[in-house]
Amino acid sequence: MSDKINRVVLAYSGGLDTSVILKWLQQEYQCEVVTFTADLGQGEELEPARQKARSAGVKEEHIFIDDLREEFVRDYVFPMMRANALYEGLYLLGTSIARPLIAKRQIEIAQQVGADAVAHGATGKGNDQVRFELSYYALQPDIKVIAPWREWDLTSRTRLIEWAEQHQIAVPKDKRGEAPFSTDANMLHTSSEGKVLEDPWEEVPDYVYSRTVNPEDAPDQPEYITIDFEKGDGVALNGVGVSPATLLSSLNDLGCKHGIGRLDLVENRFVGMKSRGMYETPGGTIYALAHRGIEQLTLDRGAAHLKDELMPRYAELIYNGFWFSPEREMLQAAIDHSQEKVSGTVRLKLYKGSCIVVGRKSPHSLYSEKVVTFEDDAGAYDQRDAAGFIKLNALRLRLLGRRDR
Amino acid sequence: MSDKINRVVLAYSGGLDTSVILKWLQQEYQCEVVTFTADLGQGEELEPARQKARSAGVKEEHIFIDDLREEFVRDYVFPMMRANALYEGLYLLGTSIARPLIAKRQIEIAQQVGADAVAHGATGKGNDQVRFELSYYALQPDIKVIAPWREWDLTSRTRLIEWAEQHQIAVPKDKRGEAPFSTDANMLHTSSEGKVLEDPWEEVPDYVYSRTVNPEDAPDQPEYITIDFEKGDGVALNGVGVSPATLLSSLNDLGCKHGIGRLDLVENRFVGMKSRGMYETPGGTIYALAHRGIEQLTLDRGAAHLKDELMPRYAELIYNGFWFSPEREMLQAAIDHSQEKVSGTVRLKLYKGSCIVVGRKSPHSLYSEKVVTFEDDAGAYDQRDAAGFIKLNALRLRLLGRRDR
Amino acid sequence: MSDKINRVVLAYSGGLDTSVILKWLQQEYQCEVVTFTADLGQGEELEPARQKARSAGVKEEHIFIDDLREEFVRDYVFPMMRANALYEGLYLLGTSIARPLIAKRQIEIAQQVGADAVAHGATGKGNDQVRFELSYYALQPDIKVIAPWREWDLTSRTRLIEWAEQHQIAVPKDKRGEAPFSTDANMLHTSSEGKVLEDPWEEVPDYVYSRTVNPEDAPDQPEYITIDFEKGDGVALNGVGVSPATLLSSLNDLGCKHGIGRLDLVENRFVGMKSRGMYETPGGTIYALAHRGIEQLTLDRGAAHLKDELMPRYAELIYNGFWFSPEREMLQAAIDHSQEKVSGTVRLKLYKGSCIVVGRKSPHSLYSEKVVTFEDDAGAYDQRDAAGFIKLNALRLRLLGRRDR
Amino acid sequence: MSDKINRVVLAYSGGLDTSVILKWLQQEYQCEVVTFTADLGQGEELEPARQKARSAGVKEEHIFIDDLREEFVRDYVFPMMRANALYEGLYLLGTSIARPLIAKRQIEIAQQVGADAVAHGATGKGNDQVRFELSYYALQPDIKVIAPWREWDLTSRTRLIEWAEQHQIAVPKDKRGEAPFSTDANMLHTSSEGKVLEDPWEEVPDYVYSRTVNPEDAPDQPEYITIDFEKGDGVALNGVGVSPATLLSSLNDLGCKHGIGRLDLVENRFVGMKSRGMYETPGGTIYALAHRGIEQLTLDRGAAHLKDELMPRYAELIYNGFWFSPEREMLQAAIDHSQEKVSGTVRLKLYKGSCIVVGRKSPHSLYSEKVVTFEDDAGAYDQRDAAGFIKLNALRLRLLGRRDR
Repeated sequence: MSDKINRVVLAYSGGLDTSVILKWLQQEYQCEVVTFTADLGQGEELEPARQKARSAGVKEEHIFIDDLREEFVRDYVFPMMRANALYEGLYLLGTSIARPLIAKRQIEIAQQVGADAVAHGATGKGNDQVRFELSYYALQPDIKVIAPWREWDLTSRTRLIEWAEQHQIAVPKDKRGEAPFSTDANMLHTSSEGKVLEDPWEEVPDYVYSRTVNPEDAPDQPEYITIDFEKGDGVALNGVGVSPATLLSSLNDLGCKHGIGRLDLVENRFVGMKSRGMYETPGGTIYALAHRGIEQLTLDRGAAHLKDELMPRYAELIYNGFWFSPEREMLQAAIDHSQEKVSGTVRLKLYKGSCIVVGRKSPHSLYSEKVVTFEDDAGAYDQRDAAGFIKLNALRLRLLGRRDR
Repeated sequence: MSDKINRVVLAYSGGLDTSVILKWLQQEYQCEVVTFTADLGQGEELEPARQKARSAGVKEEHIFIDDLREEFVRDYVFPMMRANALYEGLYLLGTSIARPLIAKRQIEIAQQVGADAVAHGATGKGNDQVRFELSYYALQPDIKVIAPWREWDLTSRTRLIEWAEQHQIAVPKDKRGEAPFSTDANMLHTSSEGKVLEDPWEEVPDYVYSRTVNPEDAPDQPEYITIDFEKGDGVALNGVGVSPATLLSSLNDLGCKHGIGRLDLVENRFVGMKSRGMYETPGGTIYALAHRGIEQLTLDRGAAHLKDELMPRYAELIYNGFWFSPEREMLQAAIDHSQEKVSGTVRLKLYKGSCIVVGRKSPHSLYSEKVVTFEDDAGAYDQRDAAGFIKLNALRLRLLGRRDR
Repeated sequence: MSDKINRVVLAYSGGLDTSVILKWLQQEYQCEVVTFTADLGQGEELEPARQKARSAGVKEEHIFIDDLREEFVRDYVFPMMRANALYEGLYLLGTSIARPLIAKRQIEIAQQVGADAVAHGATGKGNDQVRFELSYYALQPDIKVIAPWREWDLTSRTRLIEWAEQHQIAVPKDKRGEAPFSTDANMLHTSSEGKVLEDPWEEVPDYVYSRTVNPEDAPDQPEYITIDFEKGDGVALNGVGVSPATLLSSLNDLGCKHGIGRLDLVENRFVGMKSRGMYETPGGTIYALAHRGIEQLTLDRGAAHLKDELMPRYAELIYNGFWFSPEREMLQAAIDHSQEKVSGTVRLKLYKGSCIVVGRKSPHSLYSEKVVTFEDDAGAYDQRDAAGFIKLNALRLRLLGRRDR
Repeated sequence: MSDKINRVVLAYSGGLDTSVILKWLQQEYQCEVVTFTADLGQGEELEPARQKARSAGVKEEHIFIDDLREEFVRDYVFPMMRANALYEGLYLLGTSIARPLIAKRQIEIAQQVGADAVAHGATGKGNDQVRFELSYYALQPDIKVIAPWREWDLTSRTRLIEWAEQHQIAVPKDKRGEAPFSTDANMLHTSSEGKVLEDPWEEVPDYVYSRTVNPEDAPDQPEYITIDFEKGDGVALNGVGVSPATLLSSLNDLGCKHGIGRLDLVENRFVGMKSRGMYETPGGTIYALAHRGIEQLTLDRGAAHLKDELMPRYAELIYNGFWFSPEREMLQAAIDHSQEKVSGTVRLKLYKGSCIVVGRKSPHSLYSEKVVTFEDDAGAYDQRDAAGFIKLNALRLRLLGRRDR
């Protein structure tokens, strides 16, 4: 708190934590707070945030509420999906991918209103502080960053609530009792951590899930859908052209209905500890499988295998907060180059928690029934070529075998 | 066919194709044929193969029928599972991993009976010819290899059946009509290719599946199981210690019952074409998820991420037939080094085609509730450390931002 | 030789081998031969090739002699140098990088003159056949390819010369006696293989080198030069702007004079054997070091390390002949993305076989004397940040140490 | 400085900085200081360190002076050399590889004398603090670490010297005037940073070098040597068996004499900034080239290329201080597995700053003159195999070409 701050842009949800932070910033830093609330499809009303900001004394022109849903899906989720990104083999990076967009918009607002600082409500143990701050610094290297959770002395939930009450900040009824889960939500996913989840041997109780029905309660009949892709991105659902955010939103509805996209994970945080989380990514899970499905038909083996080898690094970069880094951009350039002909239609079956690709077709298919057939191929492939192929692939192994065996 | 062959060891199933090959070798090469039939848990009676070999004039001491099930799971499937190997993101390599073992045993028999050649029944378009032959050459560099499908003029199924009938080889009734699927089966999986599957837009008909019930016909109640691991390998099911093959076999029963492990895939063959296949890997699918589950708790992040980055290459090597290669062995050495403490128990839920990890515990857990908790951690983690961590991770991005933004 | 060929475009140097091939094609295939001779800066007169082609009965309009020097350096050598490509840690890929360009031009000519085939003079043991033919097939998938060395029965040098004499093809005096080295030359390098070099314990005799003076005979005074780069490519020598080919040519003169760029290598060929070769890459060696020098100053660490990790794969692709492949193009896209600010000046010292970077400067430097200084940095870097950085990097190792040590 | 320290083990050279630190620790922490001075072949007398420690009041039994030269070369330098490790393509990691050994010994001493803390003299801007501390924490997770340069207020050289004089610490004459270079030395290398080197455009003045003669002053006659390897490690020089440290020491003498191993580098530090350094690695440079030379002959291509791809990561881990990490150990396991047959003799030529391999031989050579020869190979290799090899490698490119071109 050494430097004097004049104006700070706070990533503000209107919830208890960021309401406390808003007041705390005003008080501790004696500075003007600008609030920024993003609609990333988290499914909450945003107008209450405006009211609360007003009540806290934020100037009308300093209350920013932006609908970023299309930008989020088009410029963040879809590029990531082109890479088939999975962190630690399983996680679709729903929280990670939203942070750089929020940070970018915060910096834009800071530049617009002449703020000299930005602030966020992420704690000092998690990945989000890193994702926010690496993005801030990459985009505006000399910005001042305030991370109240690392600065103040409100070291427990109880103390936070006491502070809120002392400062006339409304504490939701259900927050008074038990501590809440630490959750995050946007159009791609909802996550929960903490409380009962802190024991990785305990099954996630069904009440923790909020975005998907329990597979056991899902319809007894499977449902078939199609997704159309153009150059690696989804463009239509069941043959009807839709925008990126509309597509993801519709897939969320389908995934919710069929109990698709639940994940129980113990993961490795960038800050060095393991944590256990519950993720629901209904539409994203369907979309990711569909994307792999269309790639199977339209992507060359060399491109596909290179993508698979680069993917873990790419996913790690996003998880660790390096979206705005040269190496993520380099990998993106390679990945995007591969997607030129990744177009066509994938058919999927949704049923009680599972989603599988059952068909794919494309005007750019590299699959050749003529070549692959077990029937007479009319000379499309000369089986004798395989003899030479094997002999030369074996040559080094034979030289080795002669020496070593 | 230039070289004179005296004695050849044939990988022999007793089915139509290898029966034709047996006769054809005797006739074309005027040589003694030694038959080798492996029990890899494919679920077929092997005694009929003995009878057929006898009838074809193979000497009693030249009929080899070996139970390789434990060796298969212990020395091939489990090491591969330690790597979390998935080819092209999805395929558990059920066929690929069996070929090197068959080839190894063929070479051992060839050395034992003084044969100068080995033969197999894989076609000239597929991966299996490569897998067999690279293994043969690696283990005995100067062995002669006979691949009848690349040599003879039986270029269609119809001609094969005609030839069989001309030579008094029994043709199963159902083979006379429609051409069969090209299938492979062992304890890890069953695969089917060809026929209706050659159109990747057509859903795989339910009658093609043989190892799993349709998820829609699976029990309406989920089933919970536990698997115990020691140093990266499964050792017990529901608390009862079992051998590798017994474990996989029991998991196959469970997977079958709950419709788990079906995969519809368009994949890239090593010989350069795309093919479409259907795979059923019931027990292997459960096992693979469980292994990831126990690694989540017991494997350090550095080790886990390195494994994820190496995995696609490792899987490609197995798929392409390079099991007996220095580079596969090097990767295995790295992977095995990581498994020393991968011990503990994983709990899974099986339900209508899906299998999810719901809990994991271990005496070697690296998960620290004390460190990760959202509650007061009594100084286990100093949140202020995160500030420095972020500042130094950001430094290069800030220098870059100052230059470029 | 099953298919009827009407017209074939031959990569023709005018030397003994391709002269024999020209005649052999006319005779064996009874087809029209179109000759293509490329000037890649190999330093030979090309007009004699025209005369010889004429004498062999090639139509005037079917004799193609093209100066490809600028295209070679600009579109092949420079992009490869952006990657800092070294095959097996040492080899600058001088032969490999020229083949795709020759093949591409051959295919263009084939399309122009309506030829149905292309031919080259590379042997069946080497890499060049692969590089030529993969490029042909990638660019025109249905082209017919004639590789005489794999087809004819001229299995030794002696038989080739006999055939030449029988067919009135002039055999150079020095070819009658001892077999020559197998050499390749272009503006980037000269290579020699065979003969005395076939024993990898024997030092390469000095007479084998043709492009560089022996370092022991080089000037006793070092020479300093500068190279300017723009976006990753060389644009000026000693402050004077020059074209790509002129730059490389001038660096060749300098490298020759100072004995720079000799390499004695045992390498692994794509066809599975080891070979021993001698390479001289005078200008390329200087250029490659200079490029690394300017990257040191202008490339971010994340980008630089990603490039280093991708490089071996990229180099292998070029060596193996996969220039025209999606995966090489993907890697190129990533590499090129990193070069936007790789601009500035590098100063080098050349002296008796060695070349070292002694200085580099750039308007886009990321080096900050203010940050790095051992003197007072006026707050540019807070050393206390390092404590948190280390603590969080150490956290997983500490958790591990508590478990394992 | 919150926690009470009773006894601390200081990595102590006896120079000005660590003498100041010794006194400062005694004064600030009121604790007992144990000094540890390692002989890593830095070429300094160590007895003066003993005297100085005594004078500073360190108990006789708390003065540790250990000769770690053989352990250093055998267990740190050689394993690293097996990997052909080069950081950022050029740097042989001379400083990085020594830090984990010093840290390990410090921890051993701390355990032996019952110390609760360790301390080092590395600054807060460099890599060494990270390397020391990550090693400390990995080996003893709960050790307290004191890094005076990050704690005290001696923020400039001038203040350090004032403090020394106030506290009766002898300040060497040459330190009073100009600030010294920041140097590090051990048997593998000597480094210098700071002062004039802080301008990366300025050539390193010759007086900065201390371990090698200027190539211009080196002998006018080249010198030839041989190094014998067993399983990837050097065992003999010019045919005479020697210990690891003796071998490296002798190579240092040779490299010094011929001006070999100078490097002028701008590198990326782990803490996020670029720095410019001068390195001299005379013997290590020769050794590294020789190791590559023997691998060329004895290592299979698959193993060699995998090593090349893993190397940048391996080098980065060592540079960043992660020697004692699971991922470094995993990579080491893979690398070591490859070295079983890396035995034989390499011949090198040393001349005026350059070192080149001119011959290599091995009883385990994979080079086959019979296969590679341009002369008649008596059927060792069938050139027609290459046709099939190329056709199948081309198949995917042709399918792609038909679609895209």
